Amino acid sequence: MKAEIIAVGSELLTPTRVDTNSLFLTEQLNRLGIEVVRKLVIGDLRSQIRDAFREALDRVELVISIGGLGPTEDDLTRETVADLLGRKLIQSDAILRGIQARFRRLGRAMPEANLRQAMVPEGATVLENSRGTAPGLWLETNGHTVILLPGPPHELRTIFTQQVEPKLARRTSGVRLFGRELRVAGMAESDVDQRIAPIYTRYTDVRTTLLASPGEIQIHLRLWSADEAASETLLNEMVERITMALGENVFTTEGESLEQVVAHELTLNDATIAVAESCTGGLLAERLTSIPGSSTYFLGGVVCYSNNLKSAWVDVPADLIEAKGAVSVEVARALAEGIRRRSGATLGLGVTGIAGPGGGSTEKPVGTVHLALAEASGCKERSLRFPGDRERIRWQASQSALDMVRRYFLYTSQSKPQSKG
Amino acid sequence: MKAEIIAVGSELLTPTRVDTNSLFLTEQLNRLGIEVVRKLVIGDLRSQIRDAFREALDRVELVISIGGLGPTEDDLTRETVADLLGRKLIQSDAILRGIQARFRRLGRAMPEANLRQAMVPEGATVLENSRGTAPGLWLETNGHTVILLPGPPHELRTIFTQQVEPKLARRTSGVRLFGRELRVAGMAESDVDQRIAPIYTRYTDVRTTLLASPGEIQIHLRLWSADEAASETLLNEMVERITMALGENVFTTEGESLEQVVAHELTLNDATIAVAESCTGGLLAERLTSIPGSSTYFLGGVVCYSNNLKSAWVDVPADLIEAKGAVSVEVARALAEGIRRRSGATLGLGVTGIAGPGGGSTEKPVGTVHLALAEASGCKERSLRFPGDRERIRWQASQSALDMVRRYFLYTSQSKPQSKG
Repeated sequence: MKAEIIAVGSELLTPTRVDTNSLFLTEQLNRLGIEVVRKLVIGDLRSQIRDAFREALDRVELVISIGGLGPTEDDLTRETVADLLGRKLIQSDAILRGIQARFRRLGRAMPEANLRQAMVPEGATVLENSRGTAPGLWLETNGHTVILLPGPPHELRTIFTQQVEPKLARRTSGVRLFGRELRVAGMAESDVDQRIAPIYTRYTDVRTTLLASPGEIQIHLRLWSADEAASETLLNEMVERITMALGENVFTTEGESLEQVVAHELTLNDATIAVAESCTGGLLAERLTSIPGSSTYFLGGVVCYSNNLKSAWVDVPADLIEAKGAVSVEVARALAEGIRRRSGATLGLGVTGIAGPGGGSTEKPVGTVHLALAEASGCKERSLRFPGDRERIRWQASQSALDMVRRYFLYTSQSKPQSKG
Repeated sequence: MKAEIIAVGSELLTPTRVDTNSLFLTEQLNRLGIEVVRKLVIGDLRSQIRDAFREALDRVELVISIGGLGPTEDDLTRETVADLLGRKLIQSDAILRGIQARFRRLGRAMPEANLRQAMVPEGATVLENSRGTAPGLWLETNGHTVILLPGPPHELRTIFTQQVEPKLARRTSGVRLFGRELRVAGMAESDVDQRIAPIYTRYTDVRTTLLASPGEIQIHLRLWSADEAASETLLNEMVERITMALGENVFTTEGESLEQVVAHELTLNDATIAVAESCTGGLLAERLTSIPGSSTYFLGGVVCYSNNLKSAWVDVPADLIEAKGAVSVEVARALAEGIRRRSGATLGLGVTGIAGPGGGSTEKPVGTVHLALAEASGCKERSLRFPGDRERIRWQASQSALDMVRRYFLYTSQSKPQSKG
């Protein structure tokens, strides 16, 4: 079954508001095997609401709307949809009593405006709202289903979970969405695509989407099917082939973030880590500690922006900074080794670079970053140059630093986390 | 002028992705006096893309699309729109050379797939993309304008600002959007509303929106008008009244972030800062260093997760941790004073707390946070309890810490940054 979501509300067309209700609905609908094929945001205008429902009903079986059921003048969904479907609005005494009771509990008189919320299109099923005054409405029309839900997220969620979900579950055919999410570090989107297009184009039932973000490519595989066993087998096979093609650049086949993967490896290997950051300014520590339970593997970090503190806190020799510059592979190495020694961690990670917008030169342009990973038996370095603005450069630097840690464990880990291609 | 935005991408129809590009576009278009009347999200399907553009062109003068200009098989916007408008696709040698040059700079060969990005519909104006490979496209058709922009936010923003905005500005009618954005720390949304509702309800031409996010309430004032002088006067008057009502809780009247305000105060007062963080795990340092030029005031930070490192790095006495616990106001104070001494900064900021989900107790539940700000003449502390999950608690802790620094400068600053109510 296919569905469209229509969010009604002029505030959703301003620069500051985003419709997040539709994410909840999409997740719930997908679980039931219903695909969301279109999401629309429109203002509180009768003509817009009318057109939106009319067009959606021409395309799909199920139309769900969000908002426009409140008591005020600009809440028009109820009336407009009734009109479009040729239904009269009838006052429901049951709803009216419910709204009145609600106001009594709050110790207030019911404003006249709320009378509107007791009006129900002929033939509609009322979806009771235990969290607010506006009930949801369920209408059947020529083999199509229209569900109107209120906009406040906690009301929408409660009505959906308690009343819509059980009713929809009875009609779905058993077709559900199955999926996988692979993530790749250290490759460009077009390179990833070139290597895996010969694979995914052969799986015509699976929808493959590539998504690029700084320092990471995501590969989403999605398959609608009623046959769970066959779907899982097919997706597993596809994941294996893609992983073979991309090798150790794949860091997860389950949609994990790079910090989650690194956290997992550190825990699995009983290893600890400490970081000394310059240009990333705390971002690396922040990402490592964003994971619940990170205190078992993360000992600490220093953000040493000034040269003095690089020497005072992690023993980077002042003459090394003088000779090579604060942004140099040698200083990255001294940061990594210094923080490892000072913290007693298994691994020390050092980052130095130029995040910009100032501070660049011809020799060391903005985006220059040096990374080093120190362990008991030595130290590895990487020198990189990232495009983009300050935020993007810092993010990519942290991404590459975490990826260095991940790759280190590929060869030393207690486990064999995945195929290495 | 009225516009519709069409976001293309199947990933935007999944439960995890939300189209935030449209917020940026809405803001920019509103500034130009263009109202966004519809936002649509559709999947990477030729028929959906075609229908969406056809319908939008029936309704409005300006249609802007986001996404689907990449190099892969499922990037279909360019071809589908060309086809709908009856234009042939022609290879642009200029674009091709640009893409090739971009790959050369990155030291890589251009994959064949990127050839698609050099294809341009007949008669289209190419909007150069200095941040990526996919150029934007501008098409005129029967008095309507169609603008195709790439999906990666930094590419979209750059192209819009540099090339779309100036072209659109030339055609708009003179009615523009004027606005202000105040931000408030240390108050709940309902308290803010109660204090300022008597003010904003009197300004019926100005649309006032309150937006709550963790540790911050934003007040957006928006006014459509052709009269710049009158609008500015009216908004200034309103801003002044609201600021009077909320006092020093208002930290900006220009939409700045708290870290920007703190950066400004530190710079203005020739002060430096260093931080010692536990539960915020680097977030505080990260926010302070996210501002370009932060090396002038930010000396450094330590993230000391383990008790040992709290003692070794910032001299928190081991017996104090033993006696009061790592999460205590006394340890926050020792962190602040220790980091100030160790760094030589004007101000030392210390944070300790329980971000969860584990580690809480009846006496010290998850969300308990202690902050301390040390300066030459003493130290101030604050103890707080925040609701929410790990991420939310960490964010609120960093927000309150920055707000402590801001309020410190209210009484010591060289400047009088704003009315103090």
